[in-house]
Amino acid sequence: MARINEHFAKLPAGYLFPEIGRRVRAYQAAHPDAKVIRLGIGDVTEPLAPAITEAMHRAVDELGVRETFRGYGPEQGYDFLVDAIRAHDYAGLDIAADEIFVSDGSKCDSGNVQELFSLGARIAVTDPVYPVYVDSNVMAGRTGPLGADGRYPGLTYLVGTEANGFQPDPPDEPVDFAYLCSPNNPTGTVATRVQLERWVAWARANDAVILFDAAYESYIADPALPHSIYEIAGARECAIELRSFSKRAGFTGVRCAFMVIPKTVMGVDPGGKRVPLHALWSRRHTTKFNGASYVVQRGAAAAYSPEGLAQTRAQIAFYMENARLLRTGLAAAGFTSFGGIHAPYLWLRTRDGATSWELFDRLLGEAQIVGTPGAGFGPGGEGYFRLSAFNSRANIEEAIGRIQRVFG
Amino acid sequence: MARINEHFAKLPAGYLFPEIGRRVRAYQAAHPDAKVIRLGIGDVTEPLAPAITEAMHRAVDELGVRETFRGYGPEQGYDFLVDAIRAHDYAGLDIAADEIFVSDGSKCDSGNVQELFSLGARIAVTDPVYPVYVDSNVMAGRTGPLGADGRYPGLTYLVGTEANGFQPDPPDEPVDFAYLCSPNNPTGTVATRVQLERWVAWARANDAVILFDAAYESYIADPALPHSIYEIAGARECAIELRSFSKRAGFTGVRCAFMVIPKTVMGVDPGGKRVPLHALWSRRHTTKFNGASYVVQRGAAAAYSPEGLAQTRAQIAFYMENARLLRTGLAAAGFTSFGGIHAPYLWLRTRDGATSWELFDRLLGEAQIVGTPGAGFGPGGEGYFRLSAFNSRANIEEAIGRIQRVFG
Repeated sequence: MARINEHFAKLPAGYLFPEIGRRVRAYQAAHPDAKVIRLGIGDVTEPLAPAITEAMHRAVDELGVRETFRGYGPEQGYDFLVDAIRAHDYAGLDIAADEIFVSDGSKCDSGNVQELFSLGARIAVTDPVYPVYVDSNVMAGRTGPLGADGRYPGLTYLVGTEANGFQPDPPDEPVDFAYLCSPNNPTGTVATRVQLERWVAWARANDAVILFDAAYESYIADPALPHSIYEIAGARECAIELRSFSKRAGFTGVRCAFMVIPKTVMGVDPGGKRVPLHALWSRRHTTKFNGASYVVQRGAAAAYSPEGLAQTRAQIAFYMENARLLRTGLAAAGFTSFGGIHAPYLWLRTRDGATSWELFDRLLGEAQIVGTPGAGFGPGGEGYFRLSAFNSRANIEEAIGRIQRVFG
Repeated sequence: MARINEHFAKLPAGYLFPEIGRRVRAYQAAHPDAKVIRLGIGDVTEPLAPAITEAMHRAVDELGVRETFRGYGPEQGYDFLVDAIRAHDYAGLDIAADEIFVSDGSKCDSGNVQELFSLGARIAVTDPVYPVYVDSNVMAGRTGPLGADGRYPGLTYLVGTEANGFQPDPPDEPVDFAYLCSPNNPTGTVATRVQLERWVAWARANDAVILFDAAYESYIADPALPHSIYEIAGARECAIELRSFSKRAGFTGVRCAFMVIPKTVMGVDPGGKRVPLHALWSRRHTTKFNGASYVVQRGAAAAYSPEGLAQTRAQIAFYMENARLLRTGLAAAGFTSFGGIHAPYLWLRTRDGATSWELFDRLLGEAQIVGTPGAGFGPGGEGYFRLSAFNSRANIEEAIGRIQRVFG
């Protein structure tokens, strides 16, 4: 009798993005001529930079010749990529090459990282939150069934509000492992140095571990803001960091990311012995993963070449100009919004007491614009709405015009 | 206090391939001029087929142009690949497109699949066995600590012996989920139709689920042997199948594979309700994975074009001629071996009561050949030794000559 993992049943059937897809398809079926502009899912639209495609072509050529063919690579990633990451992203930050684990995506890394912790570990997430952090812990069995309040018993929720700038403080109760995303998906807000210092101090005082998801760090515009948690003294003792090439180099369909685990981040076993999480992740990564594609790793490394840096920075500047236009255009239409300065997401406050799904339906029905209802990111997202700056300039300008006509 | 997953500590520190690497490095340091031939790890050596590199180049070009750029793809894989898989690998076998899940590798799939089952589920593996099946279940907590007999209490071991042709029968005791690999890694032997019928009958009679790992199916030479478990009546009710492009198309560094889960394969929840495993895997795949690279999927699809099929079949024929030469060369040196007819692996019996590590050390020290000690695949592998046929013809011939000189 094949007994199943009973925890999957705790996840609601109607997941956020399929439900959005259903409503958009229904609208388009009823209005076949409508030109729908999609600012919902955070997917890039600019093509890969020439430096990257050139590197990928060279890699494909290498694999087509016996003398330069490569089979299995190191599961942790090739030295050429790890060294480039270290030199550019962690210069002066005391991160060793073997503390960097290349992967095929931050979604995988952020879903898999919970395997390092006991099933009895107490997990903290923000609310609103990137759903993978929550769902992967539900599937592992660390929660009860979804409550009527939209929360899973067993998780600690830290609510992001306008009052705290959507950057909640660390928890008061004991927690083993906390997920922190900055620049934040979905709110587009960013943690300051002082806020990160508070998190690191909390983790060290409580012997807790932080997962710092910095998938959007390349969108930070203010040089005073930290890009890495390791810019905070003491973070090497308590923090794991995620980075991704998805939004930084247009790799959403190419697939490359990495996780940093300093050897000094410790967990504790049931006998009270301190164990480096690095050793556990190394075992997990080499046992259940077989390395990112060689061609992809060559493309990712090219994002660090002088040409690659210039080209990808220009893409990011393009998206951030989209975000600025959206922000000012929405303000002119009377909307209050947050984020969008150090991240490609705007977090809109709904108006007239509308729920986030009501705003979704109105934007789709009256302006043919698809966004993401805040409630899809947790109960703390109710009353808010996420718009993405990933699109062509023409579509962004068209979207602003429509919103101003409908709501202005 | 970050409480860790205590089950990782049950895994021995000295993993098979790192230990092999350590001994080879030590030998080479002491004998810097020795020309070591590596027939250990099962990694391909022939370059990618031209049809595949051409498709990958085209895909890279598409990603470099705004009009043809693609971001996030479907987590389950693009239709162009899924349809090619279905048409070529499952023609007439009643597998729907949405029952195929493209991934970045069979190592990942075979490590992740256990997440579908209860932590209390009883797991059966063969011995010798591909280590990922065992280790992923140990990490999940389904076993006790490694016993002095080299086995984990809580797992059901089915021992492959010369008497059963290294194809053990299904278990007598109740089991929820069984891993079956054919053509087999490590033994290179293959299950017959009658043997697979027995497995399917057992699974249906016991309401159990089989994972059929067919990563090496393209090496099957006899048209009477099944390539897919779904060639067996009733398998749609009880079997999940894995396939990979690694050995079929030289993708060990490119990374692409797929899992087939018919919607008719059921598990049972704690309330006794029957639940399709397809729904659980779909949730797992979309929550913790973000699709294989677009460039890689285009390359994989090209393996099914007329040119791609011809070119990859020629590569497989080349490796299998290597296997034939090894088989006859080893027999001439007085070795008894198994497998190597429908798989690129030979399973050698050691001589004069040597352990598998003793043969390893002798082959390395006297013939400068690296293989894999059978004991690394479980206690049932003691007294045996795996040699891979993946190498150049010149190296295979040189290896045979050395073995004949040392042992002949």
